[in-house]
Amino acid sequence: MKQSQLFTKTRREAPKDEVAKNAQLLIRAGYIHKEMAGAYCYLPLGLRTLNKIINIIREEMNAIGGQEVHLTALQDKQKWEATGRWSDEVIDVWFKTELKNGNQVGLGTTHEEPLTSLMKDHINSFRDLPIAVYQFQTKFRNEIRAKSGIMRGREFLMKDLYSFNATQQEHNAYYERAKQAYVKIFERLGLGDKTFVTFASGGSFAKYSHEFQTVTEAGEDTIYLHEGKKLAVNKEVLNDEVLKDLGILRSDLKEVKAIEVGNIFNLGTKFSDAFGLTFKDEEGKVNPVIMGCYGIGPGRVMGTIAEIWSDEKGLVWPEAVAPFAVHLIAIFDKNGEVKKATDALYEKLVKQGVEVLYDDRDTSAGQKFSDSDLIGIPKRMVLSEKTMKNNQIEVKDRKSGEVRMEEIL
Amino acid sequence: MKQSQLFTKTRREAPKDEVAKNAQLLIRAGYIHKEMAGAYCYLPLGLRTLNKIINIIREEMNAIGGQEVHLTALQDKQKWEATGRWSDEVIDVWFKTELKNGNQVGLGTTHEEPLTSLMKDHINSFRDLPIAVYQFQTKFRNEIRAKSGIMRGREFLMKDLYSFNATQQEHNAYYERAKQAYVKIFERLGLGDKTFVTFASGGSFAKYSHEFQTVTEAGEDTIYLHEGKKLAVNKEVLNDEVLKDLGILRSDLKEVKAIEVGNIFNLGTKFSDAFGLTFKDEEGKVNPVIMGCYGIGPGRVMGTIAEIWSDEKGLVWPEAVAPFAVHLIAIFDKNGEVKKATDALYEKLVKQGVEVLYDDRDTSAGQKFSDSDLIGIPKRMVLSEKTMKNNQIEVKDRKSGEVRMEEIL
Repeated sequence: MKQSQLFTKTRREAPKDEVAKNAQLLIRAGYIHKEMAGAYCYLPLGLRTLNKIINIIREEMNAIGGQEVHLTALQDKQKWEATGRWSDEVIDVWFKTELKNGNQVGLGTTHEEPLTSLMKDHINSFRDLPIAVYQFQTKFRNEIRAKSGIMRGREFLMKDLYSFNATQQEHNAYYERAKQAYVKIFERLGLGDKTFVTFASGGSFAKYSHEFQTVTEAGEDTIYLHEGKKLAVNKEVLNDEVLKDLGILRSDLKEVKAIEVGNIFNLGTKFSDAFGLTFKDEEGKVNPVIMGCYGIGPGRVMGTIAEIWSDEKGLVWPEAVAPFAVHLIAIFDKNGEVKKATDALYEKLVKQGVEVLYDDRDTSAGQKFSDSDLIGIPKRMVLSEKTMKNNQIEVKDRKSGEVRMEEIL
Repeated sequence: MKQSQLFTKTRREAPKDEVAKNAQLLIRAGYIHKEMAGAYCYLPLGLRTLNKIINIIREEMNAIGGQEVHLTALQDKQKWEATGRWSDEVIDVWFKTELKNGNQVGLGTTHEEPLTSLMKDHINSFRDLPIAVYQFQTKFRNEIRAKSGIMRGREFLMKDLYSFNATQQEHNAYYERAKQAYVKIFERLGLGDKTFVTFASGGSFAKYSHEFQTVTEAGEDTIYLHEGKKLAVNKEVLNDEVLKDLGILRSDLKEVKAIEVGNIFNLGTKFSDAFGLTFKDEEGKVNPVIMGCYGIGPGRVMGTIAEIWSDEKGLVWPEAVAPFAVHLIAIFDKNGEVKKATDALYEKLVKQGVEVLYDDRDTSAGQKFSDSDLIGIPKRMVLSEKTMKNNQIEVKDRKSGEVRMEEIL
């Protein structure tokens, strides 16, 4: 894409009411726009990065047999009353509104209730199981404070997968498979080194749930990290019993701030019992389906990457999620030779399938370089009168800062 | 995909409260699920078709220079007060809710206000124009009645593009270009023959707006069709002046029911005036930006296709939007030869990049054929003991019903 066509502009300052580093950087670089606290618009660069994150997650969900659906945001009060979760005292982040006929409806904060109810149309027999269903869907949560930029939104995209199994053993095997898929996702997203499987409260159906916590000062959670075993314990559940279960010593743990980028839960039969989601086994006996749920917020992941992969000059995207692979910059000369050569190189790269942002704007070299650092594309290629004297391009790695000269082919 | 893995089941009857043919068929075939009146979930087959529709629209929007963004559903009251559209008397389909601090927020019915406000950060000079921005975004409209299945939702996906131009002349040229893009989109979607550019009320800034109306008995609009000129006039604006403008006679018009699958509007400076969205021209003079907006609802398009492309047996998808290109059906024999041959053919087709739904279920031939007719994939391939005697496959075209035998290669 030619940067002269990109409608967004970079800016020196983030809005004064924006306190989160991730949002400050992403707004300054033109990736997002703050609509209100906790609600952000994705602009072209931001949407490209968000979609790369989504696609990585989608590939890994498909790899563990996930079938993609898209449920509604509007929620039927009756279904949530069936589990006692319509009450604002149970879910304290509901947004509720009403139909013209006066019936109350909610905006989905999560989707166990409607999906469990829906699956009754499709699950009858052991032959129908196992099933794994996922979606990328906008969730609405009426947070009292929303000060972490795109790491905690009132409106945000969520990937939520739900598993349906016939036996506890099959469920456990799927849960483990999903956990490994999550490990792979965070590795592919460039967060592998800083993301830890974290033991957290399990609820009614299992001793533990598992969070994926990425260590960053900007995190809202406190976790206790065991670096040797590459695991952690959420502060909420840290006690002697947990230490014993995990075979670790309190003295080996380090208290750090972290952001929860994913979580996986055993749901047991809580929802299948409430909705009568059952199946007939091989002997004709009716049993409740055993469920699990598995969440990742792609926007939160993007905010977390921005917190971790950035420096004083701007964003430093990992290749897998950068909006473009190459930032091609032309420092124009008077006789148009640089423009001609850079135009040709741009065409060639595009033809090769390389995703290039070409800064063809009629602006200063200083502006182009500082914008490029702010936008944070991994590889920068510069053509100028000087580089062209030797028929060369200057290639700079955004992360390491390493510069090398390459021949123009 | 193997059909034994697909979690959805077909059903003989649609829910009793579902009166629209499109939703009845799509529910029976497992494409969608009715969450409540006007709010539908997309299941795997439905999401595949919806995404094909989205991708066709996206390609054509990119081809006319559209840059994709994603705005928020939550709407800031103040922005809508700036244009007088917060009032329920002006927009009578608002869903409104409130933040924990008591501030009212709305759910977006359309996005002129937030986008015009956002563009102030990015438009200053004539050099920044023209710009075209679009999104695929869930809209919420609190319809009193929602009885047309996925053709009119309380919650539905919308592609809305907005154009920003410096002069009326440039705007007019872009408007015409967008109109042609729309013609192309409906042709690609298999609705070209039945979709007519329809003159409708233009509002404050132009004599007419243009609707794209697809002729179907299920439509909620009445239009007057001029088949010779392939245009139409919305009943709302049919009068002598319009007939004169278009150079047509009342007697040549035919009254038909139709569904509005797209619409394009001149917005003039209504929104740029309200938000102070201006640019400096070459002489340094400050002018308001001239805007247009261009909408298509992918879900409504899908419902319209289901209304038009269906018969008493089920859906009959055009190739461009079918969830799969081929429905491969194995009628198993006792010694497993058919399964072996069909498995091999499936693998081969997948390898060739053909999108195949393979009915490998352990069920009767009759069930497989009736499900296949209901699901409506364009090409059906059947392997059975009988066809294999001659080393052949039976290939049936869902639309024409034509059957031919092909060699198994």
